[in-house]
Amino acid sequence: MFEDRKRRTELSELGEFGLIRHLTGHIILKNSSTVKGVDDDAAVIDFRNKMTLVSTDLLIEGIHFDLSYYPLKHLGYKAAVVNFSDIAAMNALPSQLTVSVAVSNRFSLEAMEEIYAGILLACERYHVDLVGGDTTSSLQGLNMSLTVLGEADDSDIVYRNGARNNDLLCVTGDLGAAYIGLLVLEREKQVFKVNPDMQPDLEGHNYILERQLKPEARTDIVTLLKKINVKPTAMIDISDGLASDVLHICDGSRTGCAIYEDKIPIDPSTAMMSKEFNIDPTTAAMNGGEDYELLFTITQKDYDAIKQIPDIHVIGHMNDESSGVNLITRSGASVPVTAQGWDALLKSKREKR
Amino acid sequence: MFEDRKRRTELSELGEFGLIRHLTGHIILKNSSTVKGVDDDAAVIDFRNKMTLVSTDLLIEGIHFDLSYYPLKHLGYKAAVVNFSDIAAMNALPSQLTVSVAVSNRFSLEAMEEIYAGILLACERYHVDLVGGDTTSSLQGLNMSLTVLGEADDSDIVYRNGARNNDLLCVTGDLGAAYIGLLVLEREKQVFKVNPDMQPDLEGHNYILERQLKPEARTDIVTLLKKINVKPTAMIDISDGLASDVLHICDGSRTGCAIYEDKIPIDPSTAMMSKEFNIDPTTAAMNGGEDYELLFTITQKDYDAIKQIPDIHVIGHMNDESSGVNLITRSGASVPVTAQGWDALLKSKREKR
Repeated sequence: MFEDRKRRTELSELGEFGLIRHLTGHIILKNSSTVKGVDDDAAVIDFRNKMTLVSTDLLIEGIHFDLSYYPLKHLGYKAAVVNFSDIAAMNALPSQLTVSVAVSNRFSLEAMEEIYAGILLACERYHVDLVGGDTTSSLQGLNMSLTVLGEADDSDIVYRNGARNNDLLCVTGDLGAAYIGLLVLEREKQVFKVNPDMQPDLEGHNYILERQLKPEARTDIVTLLKKINVKPTAMIDISDGLASDVLHICDGSRTGCAIYEDKIPIDPSTAMMSKEFNIDPTTAAMNGGEDYELLFTITQKDYDAIKQIPDIHVIGHMNDESSGVNLITRSGASVPVTAQGWDALLKSKREKR
Repeated sequence: MFEDRKRRTELSELGEFGLIRHLTGHIILKNSSTVKGVDDDAAVIDFRNKMTLVSTDLLIEGIHFDLSYYPLKHLGYKAAVVNFSDIAAMNALPSQLTVSVAVSNRFSLEAMEEIYAGILLACERYHVDLVGGDTTSSLQGLNMSLTVLGEADDSDIVYRNGARNNDLLCVTGDLGAAYIGLLVLEREKQVFKVNPDMQPDLEGHNYILERQLKPEARTDIVTLLKKINVKPTAMIDISDGLASDVLHICDGSRTGCAIYEDKIPIDPSTAMMSKEFNIDPTTAAMNGGEDYELLFTITQKDYDAIKQIPDIHVIGHMNDESSGVNLITRSGASVPVTAQGWDALLKSKREKR
């Protein structure tokens, strides 16, 4: 519905090698660790004495995104950032990215340029080099595969399994906004279906829409934690929702956890729009996902170091495994946390279609 | 047409996390460089003082493979090996692999197990650790994204751009068989379409079918070259066909090249079946692709070291850029080499469907 009607160049005019050269030929490599980028059988990277980190994502149109309200440039940006977030979740910084894109003949050269513009913008902002990948045909829709490499000193890397009893549970930023932003976009899509002349009513929803359409990876927190000499004991990024992701930490670390509902950071605009959709803001934060904030545990001795940082919130503490993973509600009730994230959401998204 | 009718378990019975755990939970990491595999936000790899190499592939059903004659286990094996071949083409050895698979609900758990069985078999044979990736839904068909990491000493890495005038052009194994194998499979598919009771007539085509369905990466050549102290000046693997890939070396190195038709290694069974399809075996070798042999250049002083090796064939030599890239035919004519590989083949494959 936000599609632009510009000139259209068919991809077949360029051919496979011509297309990839067109899209990546002007890339200037910036990281000293990047020895060789696109234009050989493999990229070559020199991490010296550091560890190599690698994470990958496969994004399928109609499953992971809906192009009827997803501008292609935003999609490219988000696809890259989501991968960077996986490296941040290891307490490390991303440095190289490979991108493979498969498109049907519904997509023009200009559409591919938009996607790559978003990817390259993200690369520039996060100081990441695009070093490989390819473009190919698909029979249906847009498929993207991204793989990010990162580097870190061995001693800096934080896994999911290091949380211990009594550690404090922290989260950055605020939660639930990306999901509520998605609901706004879905609502306007339905309105548009009924009356294509309607202009989308997105006024006043800037924050939650940006959280859905243009999330950021919290590499700034990784840098900040290093600066204040705090190494989390366990860390993950919130992609599936607080519930699912805290369970990953607890499973990996063999601990229980208590999360205090009143401590979960939720932006006022998220809370307001949640009400309009008849959704409890806590539910949006617990199960919405796609916030790409960092969820991590620290030892109590590090509390003083982090308490002054406005963007880090202590939302609970770790327990014995036997006490389970619980949400302590505002009324003081203890409710077991269950993972409803991805599966449930996907189901509800599909039912909507 | 070669499909097996076994029991069928729906993927939805397991859920996303259950599925990936089921498929990758039993993996034992073998490479000392693999610090952390699946089950965190990113894999962690310790290449010490070596270089990190990375290459990636996106494979789309209906574009890159046809499941009506591609057994799923073979597909998994080939998808992995094709990536390993990219690392071999840098004169390096593969060590880690990530795999993401998207499937529609047409695919059962047993189908996914077959794909992963093939991938894991390839990993075992090539001493590669599967360290990450995921499984997700698609609206149509099977999409696979694989990324391979490899390691090498800086001084061992061979790029496409190092060939010099008078270097010898070498190729391993034999060429054209994978393409002729594909033609046999396509022919039997057509027969099957007309009469589903017909058994496929694949008798006597073992070699060319195996070259198509179960190619190997020439990591053995990488090891061998190191043993005999020969470092190629430029190298690439033959994925698009000899024509396209020699042009990549010549473009990168700014050289010309003369390839002697009578020196191109072609297996007798490839030559025989080529005739049945009315295709010049040289055309199959030049433009067929998917051989995954190594094409490389060496300085003349290394000729003595490689001439005794039965699996390495000198097929020509490099020239000044101004003399162009030419095939010297059996009759002594000089024909300019043009890249018809991927695009032309794809077109012909599509026309067939």
